[in-house]
Amino acid sequence: MEFREFSRYYKVLVEERLAEALDRDIEPSLKEAMSYSLLAGGKRIRPLLVFATIEALQGDMLLGVRPASALEMIHTYSLIHDDLPSMDNDDYRRGKLTNHKVFGEAAAILAGDALLTLAFTELSEADEISELKRLEIIQNLAFSAGAFGMVGGQQADILGEKKQLTLDELAAIHRRKTGALLCSAVYAGSVIGGANEEETKRLQVFAENIGIAFQICDDILDVIGDTATLGKEAGKDAELSKSTYPSLLTLDGA
Amino acid sequence: MEFREFSRYYKVLVEERLAEALDRDIEPSLKEAMSYSLLAGGKRIRPLLVFATIEALQGDMLLGVRPASALEMIHTYSLIHDDLPSMDNDDYRRGKLTNHKVFGEAAAILAGDALLTLAFTELSEADEISELKRLEIIQNLAFSAGAFGMVGGQQADILGEKKQLTLDELAAIHRRKTGALLCSAVYAGSVIGGANEEETKRLQVFAENIGIAFQICDDILDVIGDTATLGKEAGKDAELSKSTYPSLLTLDGA
Repeated sequence: MEFREFSRYYKVLVEERLAEALDRDIEPSLKEAMSYSLLAGGKRIRPLLVFATIEALQGDMLLGVRPASALEMIHTYSLIHDDLPSMDNDDYRRGKLTNHKVFGEAAAILAGDALLTLAFTELSEADEISELKRLEIIQNLAFSAGAFGMVGGQQADILGEKKQLTLDELAAIHRRKTGALLCSAVYAGSVIGGANEEETKRLQVFAENIGIAFQICDDILDVIGDTATLGKEAGKDAELSKSTYPSLLTLDGA
Repeated sequence: MEFREFSRYYKVLVEERLAEALDRDIEPSLKEAMSYSLLAGGKRIRPLLVFATIEALQGDMLLGVRPASALEMIHTYSLIHDDLPSMDNDDYRRGKLTNHKVFGEAAAILAGDALLTLAFTELSEADEISELKRLEIIQNLAFSAGAFGMVGGQQADILGEKKQLTLDELAAIHRRKTGALLCSAVYAGSVIGGANEEETKRLQVFAENIGIAFQICDDILDVIGDTATLGKEAGKDAELSKSTYPSLLTLDGA
């Protein structure tokens, strides 16, 4: 399968699964706020990394659906919380008003909490995956998404605003803030694809590099992109005086 | 062991485990905000319910430590988020300033997110418990804590403020907002104690009744208690025109 076709096919599978995961008995106004952000499209990069890894290992692709969906739930919750007025205070995301702009802050915080928790329902209920593998994926995801990974990175990112960071400090923040979840996506694919220790290690190095490349692109797009194409406000980094790859290395350097 | 002694002994075990769970490589300012609320004491009712259930089933008490600690992490995160200005806007909790009053809103939201996620690290890493049992506990906890349970209940509670609720509507909110997590504590104890289906069902009924009794007490204390003894602001329910058991049934009726 060509990449474009591959990506389209597995994106559809994940979109379907995400809609299905919300199709349960949830307080209607909470469900609306959760769906608004979870089903807002987006590139679905973390799910695609799960599938790409399973394919590279010639594993069973369908076993990737629920882990991929769990990763997207965690990613979406992190966007909702990061956009809040007390955090990055963003008005647009994925081309739409941010969650709190539509539903208010309280509902946005709860929708984020609910999506984070739902990711663990999604994984723990995935009985098409063996118990041991499910636990390995849950353990890695909780570690990568929480204080040791993504949430820790977001806290460091907020503390780093308006400070001049070194390239190493910047990389350390991104490794946790965005890199940890990308690595977790590749890890989930490795577990499902039955990677051995050596393969798992190599795939993690690959995932770390993707994480850095991804952040550099994101930083560059914030400088040269426009709000309509990005689906979120451009120029926010400069506005917040954030250290970024372009601000430290110049645009060409990045 | 007498109840007082039992409660003191297992509270100490949980306090020690909670401190240990935070003694890892976490961004210092994030760790401080997490510790501030997690190690602030509190009655530790959910942990004690785990241990009481295991004891009733004559199971291995020490296997309850990490599930009990995970339950307390989830309970603490829910308090931090519920106290936020956009939610209940509380200034005091467990006799201390609320998390956001000390660390600011952004850090409080992240500390809550991190504690919620840490609960799943705590459970998934608990390899003293069999894989199947760990998964059963994770699945039940994620279900009870999220959109189907506690978070859904909190959303319903916010929507219900300033509305006159019926006793049934009130009970339905509490069943999710506080009851779900109490039931999950008893469920974790049932799994670890090796309860059969019939015992599990009966223990769940017991947990539901505890949940209702607990909420009635909490509502009464909000009316007759004072801020110093409660460790949180008294009279908040009337201030928010909340439907409560005393407001619907009179104080004597409750």
